Amino acid sequence: MRIAQVAPLYVPVPPPEYGGTERIVHTLTQELVKRGHEVTLFASGGSKTSAELERSSPKPLWESGGNPDTWHAIEVEQLARRSSEFDIIHSHLDVLPWLGGDRYEAPLVTTMHGRLDQPEQRKLLAEFNHWPLVSISDAQRKPVEDLDLKWAATVYHGLDLARMYQAGDGSGGYLAFVSRLSPEKGPDLAIKVAQKAGMKIVVAGPVPEQNSDYFEKEVKPLLDHPDVEFIGELDDAGKNEVMGKAAGFLVPIQWDEPFGLAFIEALATGTPVISCRRGSLPELLEDGRHGFLVDSDEDALVDACRKLPSIDRDECRKYVLDRFSPGRMAEGYELVYQRLIAQD
Amino acid sequence: MRIAQVAPLYVPVPPPEYGGTERIVHTLTQELVKRGHEVTLFASGGSKTSAELERSSPKPLWESGGNPDTWHAIEVEQLARRSSEFDIIHSHLDVLPWLGGDRYEAPLVTTMHGRLDQPEQRKLLAEFNHWPLVSISDAQRKPVEDLDLKWAATVYHGLDLARMYQAGDGSGGYLAFVSRLSPEKGPDLAIKVAQKAGMKIVVAGPVPEQNSDYFEKEVKPLLDHPDVEFIGELDDAGKNEVMGKAAGFLVPIQWDEPFGLAFIEALATGTPVISCRRGSLPELLEDGRHGFLVDSDEDALVDACRKLPSIDRDECRKYVLDRFSPGRMAEGYELVYQRLIAQD
Repeated sequence: MRIAQVAPLYVPVPPPEYGGTERIVHTLTQELVKRGHEVTLFASGGSKTSAELERSSPKPLWESGGNPDTWHAIEVEQLARRSSEFDIIHSHLDVLPWLGGDRYEAPLVTTMHGRLDQPEQRKLLAEFNHWPLVSISDAQRKPVEDLDLKWAATVYHGLDLARMYQAGDGSGGYLAFVSRLSPEKGPDLAIKVAQKAGMKIVVAGPVPEQNSDYFEKEVKPLLDHPDVEFIGELDDAGKNEVMGKAAGFLVPIQWDEPFGLAFIEALATGTPVISCRRGSLPELLEDGRHGFLVDSDEDALVDACRKLPSIDRDECRKYVLDRFSPGRMAEGYELVYQRLIAQD
Repeated sequence: MRIAQVAPLYVPVPPPEYGGTERIVHTLTQELVKRGHEVTLFASGGSKTSAELERSSPKPLWESGGNPDTWHAIEVEQLARRSSEFDIIHSHLDVLPWLGGDRYEAPLVTTMHGRLDQPEQRKLLAEFNHWPLVSISDAQRKPVEDLDLKWAATVYHGLDLARMYQAGDGSGGYLAFVSRLSPEKGPDLAIKVAQKAGMKIVVAGPVPEQNSDYFEKEVKPLLDHPDVEFIGELDDAGKNEVMGKAAGFLVPIQWDEPFGLAFIEALATGTPVISCRRGSLPELLEDGRHGFLVDSDEDALVDACRKLPSIDRDECRKYVLDRFSPGRMAEGYELVYQRLIAQD
């Protein structure tokens, strides 16, 4: 197939550090090329890909400080002009390409990468409800399930986990909280649970600016304790080590996360997950087999910590390497593309 | 004619205070209705108009904190769906409607309201060079005059100046600087010139956040002087009084302002203007007749202050009331609309 992949321009593809969406677009693009497709990637300058690269901005916008509206509009215009060269257009940009109406000469499908539980997103989807969409989990659709939308499929993210993460042995025996220190990730609850369970906890992650008040009031007072180690933000190597040596990965989410990438990464190091039964989590892992999904309740979480030794670490890694592989993701999208082309 | 006016959604039409673009859209819309056209105004909730109002967002975005991309996309989609109801579409939104390509069933013309001297705007216009544009002054086009663009006309802004501003008598005898206190407006130069000319100066206007350093270093030290009165930001009544009692309106611009609305307003109170000969100013007023446009040079500006008594205040007011009237502006746009409809 001749496939256009349309990425946001904020960071290059692949991203040097953050940039969840751009990393997924990169993994998908590389895999589709490997599978013999002719792929054109619309992305910022500085991107590296085995597909044909259409540089829609000379530099990534985080670097140039460029106006996102201006450059994404230019990207969409370039896409529209070249649309007859493709069999399918796969956009990761949300609304902007939808303004083109019927000007594309190939079907256009959009992966929704964010949460859909805000009134504005609801209104937007209701207004543009004729565009085919892909969800990144079934749970992501829940807040808008009463709307008549054209969901083509759920396709779970895939990453090259085998290369990115080594199997760890859990020899540190501690719990690991590796995530943003935001209320919706529950770092305060995690620390309290660890102490009640009588376990050490290693806390790692950035404090987002908008959460500095929360951090000062709710988290910082808990950090001054011999069994709590706060180590700030980690790079990839650091995450690998801290997660791999943990007995359990404890991030008790307090929101309906549409796709919990961090949980997949922890499992790739062999470390079982403890979290709350909400959002995409019940789709991403099996309770009792790859960790424990419980109510957001201190006692239930403490109880889960005690049961960690019953989980087979090899099975955790094996499971995510297979289920969230680039190949699985690409297969999912190939089916979506084929169906939309057939309907066109 | 059946005309669509498409306004930004940040503030209502007309705006309660700021919002240059929305005020112009309001004036134009009211005048076109008065002239017998069937006008539909796409604008935020809270707008008041004698045209048919299509509320593209329930509230103005400055009030709701809504995402501008989301709501302007919804506005453009509503416009596209209704486009067969119009003979002409007049947009004040820049790029977003251009993404619709050929999906509009009426010609679409865009008034460019801002400066065009930044590299990003250049790139944007080059990419979308098939869309007809209206400039708000000939000077505005200058930075992109080498590009092959479809300029349909220059149409100067019109305002209901007769109702908004009373004739003042200049009895205060001072110079007035009424503008943002930003380097490109030259407040420091204005104060120095007033002192050299031996005249009192009244300084009024907000200090934009991004100019607070400039204000502290370059302007504040000059304010502590018996002949300098700094009175902060003014409402409409205050502007009327401060400008009307001034002997001269001294805002020595240090940039190529595409349309100097404040100068027109000062002239409407009868007060002659002193500024630098650049940007749109030579198009907006006549040197020696409505004030003085000189080089950005202290001595030249001081010299102009001394010549203020030679200017006829009645003539200043009469001139702008006629030249920048709602009727003149509407006539200009009617010609543009007719020409584009004929070409379509």
